[in-house]
Amino acid sequence: MTQTLKIQTLTKNAFALYGDVIEADPSRMRLINNGTTERYHALAEPVAVGQPERLIFNIFRGQPRQFPYAIDMMERHPFGSQSFVPMSGRPFLVAVSEDEEGQPGEPQVFLAQAHQGVNYFANTWHHPLMALGEVSDFLVVDRDNTAENLEEFFFETAYRIEEPRT
Amino acid sequence: MTQTLKIQTLTKNAFALYGDVIEADPSRMRLINNGTTERYHALAEPVAVGQPERLIFNIFRGQPRQFPYAIDMMERHPFGSQSFVPMSGRPFLVAVSEDEEGQPGEPQVFLAQAHQGVNYFANTWHHPLMALGEVSDFLVVDRDNTAENLEEFFFETAYRIEEPRT
Repeated sequence: MTQTLKIQTLTKNAFALYGDVIEADPSRMRLINNGTTERYHALAEPVAVGQPERLIFNIFRGQPRQFPYAIDMMERHPFGSQSFVPMSGRPFLVAVSEDEEGQPGEPQVFLAQAHQGVNYFANTWHHPLMALGEVSDFLVVDRDNTAENLEEFFFETAYRIEEPRT
Repeated sequence: MTQTLKIQTLTKNAFALYGDVIEADPSRMRLINNGTTERYHALAEPVAVGQPERLIFNIFRGQPRQFPYAIDMMERHPFGSQSFVPMSGRPFLVAVSEDEEGQPGEPQVFLAQAHQGVNYFANTWHHPLMALGEVSDFLVVDRDNTAENLEEFFFETAYRIEEPRT
């Protein structure tokens, strides 16, 4: 029987095993530019290991997912972090897993709000981009040369997600 | 007499001297994630030179500027690039200058649309963030340790910008 996964609120603490939440955390705020700008400083760090160490900016334009949605695979990038920050002002879904002897464990699903981004740590199992409702753009920072930096795993039995209330 | 600066359309070519435009350029598109996502690949590169080489993600929350606006200074960051990508779905203004013997020349002003970001090259003169209309959030990627990485220049006579039609 297919298991339905609970959709959790995305918070820094709940996500700490998997990556950083990129949001305007008041504890990181400093005023700059003669007081006209609040800088929320050092919310996350993009990382590229091995050669090339080059980090790049990309835009990912995601088709919205249909529900109920089946999570049948996860992927990870051994040589670098990967961040997703909404440019379209829309929420999106994030699914991550702890590693269990080289395979992804049961996925944890989070609803990221329009003002929240995520930065997956290198080698963290995650599901590809899940946009909601409409075609949505995301700024993505990751390591160049993605081919050698991709590992995929397909579940024998897919997990199910119901449409989130956004 | 104060000079009023023309506001130009932000294009890759017009901005090439100063930095990259981060937008969904069709020539950089490849389909990924089983066809559900368009990846616009390697639109720009964040760069940190010297020590620390650490790059960081930040959010800048900018107050909207009032018009007519006086551009009375420019700044530059010798040791790293700095990118601004809108998270609030709003246009913003960008002002940059060529270097003339260690000082910024006449500013070039560009209107960046809500789907466009910029990545200033290291050591490029630019004006601090100019949000338009409402308080707006931007994802900023730059080099950590900003204090030693900041040079400012104040013009004897400020330049003037009229409110752009967005």
